Amino acid sequence: MSFYFDAASTTPILPDSLSCMDDIYKSCWGNPSSIHSLGAEAKKKLEVIRSSISGLMGIREDQLIFTSGATESITSFFSPFLFTDPGEIITTRIEHDALSSALSFLKKRGWEIKYLKTRGGIADPDDIIPLLSDRTKLVAVMSVNNVTGAIEPIKEIRDRIDSFEEGKRKKILFFSDSVQALGKVALDSILPYVDGASFSSHKINGPRGVGILYLKNPDSFHPLSPAGGQEGGKRGGTENLPAIAGFHCALRIWLEDTEMLNRAEAINRIIREGAESLGMKVLSPALSSPFIISISGVYPSEVMLRMLHDKGFFVSSGSACSNNAQKKSSALFEAMGIKHQDAMKAIRVSFDRSMTEEGAQLLLKALEEIVSRG
Amino acid sequence: MSFYFDAASTTPILPDSLSCMDDIYKSCWGNPSSIHSLGAEAKKKLEVIRSSISGLMGIREDQLIFTSGATESITSFFSPFLFTDPGEIITTRIEHDALSSALSFLKKRGWEIKYLKTRGGIADPDDIIPLLSDRTKLVAVMSVNNVTGAIEPIKEIRDRIDSFEEGKRKKILFFSDSVQALGKVALDSILPYVDGASFSSHKINGPRGVGILYLKNPDSFHPLSPAGGQEGGKRGGTENLPAIAGFHCALRIWLEDTEMLNRAEAINRIIREGAESLGMKVLSPALSSPFIISISGVYPSEVMLRMLHDKGFFVSSGSACSNNAQKKSSALFEAMGIKHQDAMKAIRVSFDRSMTEEGAQLLLKALEEIVSRG
Repeated sequence: MSFYFDAASTTPILPDSLSCMDDIYKSCWGNPSSIHSLGAEAKKKLEVIRSSISGLMGIREDQLIFTSGATESITSFFSPFLFTDPGEIITTRIEHDALSSALSFLKKRGWEIKYLKTRGGIADPDDIIPLLSDRTKLVAVMSVNNVTGAIEPIKEIRDRIDSFEEGKRKKILFFSDSVQALGKVALDSILPYVDGASFSSHKINGPRGVGILYLKNPDSFHPLSPAGGQEGGKRGGTENLPAIAGFHCALRIWLEDTEMLNRAEAINRIIREGAESLGMKVLSPALSSPFIISISGVYPSEVMLRMLHDKGFFVSSGSACSNNAQKKSSALFEAMGIKHQDAMKAIRVSFDRSMTEEGAQLLLKALEEIVSRG
Repeated sequence: MSFYFDAASTTPILPDSLSCMDDIYKSCWGNPSSIHSLGAEAKKKLEVIRSSISGLMGIREDQLIFTSGATESITSFFSPFLFTDPGEIITTRIEHDALSSALSFLKKRGWEIKYLKTRGGIADPDDIIPLLSDRTKLVAVMSVNNVTGAIEPIKEIRDRIDSFEEGKRKKILFFSDSVQALGKVALDSILPYVDGASFSSHKINGPRGVGILYLKNPDSFHPLSPAGGQEGGKRGGTENLPAIAGFHCALRIWLEDTEMLNRAEAINRIIREGAESLGMKVLSPALSSPFIISISGVYPSEVMLRMLHDKGFFVSSGSACSNNAQKKSSALFEAMGIKHQDAMKAIRVSFDRSMTEEGAQLLLKALEEIVSRG
């Protein structure tokens, strides 16, 4: 028997989502750009799904661009700035590599990067005030951190930006990587306040290789390459309708499950309180996604991972999406003001909507066995 | 009953390919970057597939980068040149939008674009000689044209580049968009002669949303954003293992079917000779992929398409991947030296390995009925 507590890395596809995808492959496989009826049917299906997803997300249809995943959404949003005069970017030191790597290519082009502090894992919106200047053009702060689950104050950061720009010509764009927020944090606490956001399907039991780029003002977005002109000229390449349909199915199931957040919070509480009662430190701030909790164990992360693994529990030490996860993870915890000795023992416990309280209890039992051996 | 003659646009997935994909979704869904056993299994599977595909393609494993499709492969190859001093690019006027759009962003950055003629649909390699200069840095010529099927002289173009650079420091990179070549033209007539090439899965009955970027010298390739560092730092984003497995399955079926090219050539001959006997013009040159044939009908393309459609035949007037297919198609035929009046009546007939001689005969019968009404 095994328990998967690494859902922030990827999740198994829901059977319904796989069926949705397979149905499209079997019955609606035309190229949406083809003008014959097979193409027209696929195009119609795509637009029905776009309409449904934009409704679920509370955005307009033209604000929703389908991509191959969050990494592409992020790269796509930032690459057009290679063609504008460099300015200043404000971001944090706890962003996912997909975002920090995108800012790096702007830095190579002369953009200056300033860092907003994240003591305790969460930015203080007032800290952005002294960083804002007439040279600020971009602000990039993730909605939910992928290692601790920390929920960043997106609305409050937008308020500070708006105050700074009051009476001036508004030009600062605010982007938020929202991969870990989708289905887990109310989108109306994020989307009304940002100019762009990235989302991924495979973190919510949808197919791989599909994501969303949200654009507040699609008319002012000019991608590096429109290629074949799909997605209203915002993203080229034959539309991946089967994966988009599978994503839609998973998203609907997550967003329409009104009891899910309560269940996740109950599970989170069990792990949080249980870990604390075992003398472990909880590294995630109180204001976190209920689906992610980082705790500091009794042994170095790698050892803890192996011991839990032998007991049938899959956890991680940080982001899977990094060649050098341990080093990256340490830098991230350092930016949160967490002591090196605690950071070196960090394990990330993350789960999806299939997790049960029983699973959480069994994880605690395994942790207890490890702690008592220590 | 209907016959799909628009395979150059997209193809239905093979049942085996869909099964391969579904199997991975069910039994090997870990994130290949996760260090626990679910991740390790996925990583191992990915490397087994990479090894098999590189074997099938006759390339090294590290030369094979999985992407979300040919459009991404092309954009990824060209975007790093935003960071080098501009030079000259030699290309043709018959490239897919995915490529010409990528060259456009380099043009915005000061690169100069020179065009190699394609009279009759095929470039004369000697025509590149006067275009080559010490400022030439990139040459981009597709392997197989997506509208006519014309096979471009990749080896001969490389020979002319090599002759020009003899005794000089070699710096000209040669890229070939090879989407319509995969499975249809021998890869050893292309890959040994280029520095980069793009491929797509859904044109050979594999899943959507997956493609390949071939890199002759991966060590000298530095993508715009390595993001999470996947694919040896050449392409970030969680690896789409299910789609890669489905692609592998389709590729194996195409490449291991040794009788397929003979069948396709027989079908092509039926259409070519049949169309000519009906007084229609064949716009595809003799040296073309057997899977694509453009003919000029008796009515404007749109009318021909509709009439064939009503008889159950799906054909196209050009590339599906364009917002303005008709205009693009005309410009392409003009670059081939085809008269405007013939270009306006062009229809593209393309098929995959499931097409039969009977299907081709029925298409001809339908064309005959249309012609006899004319």
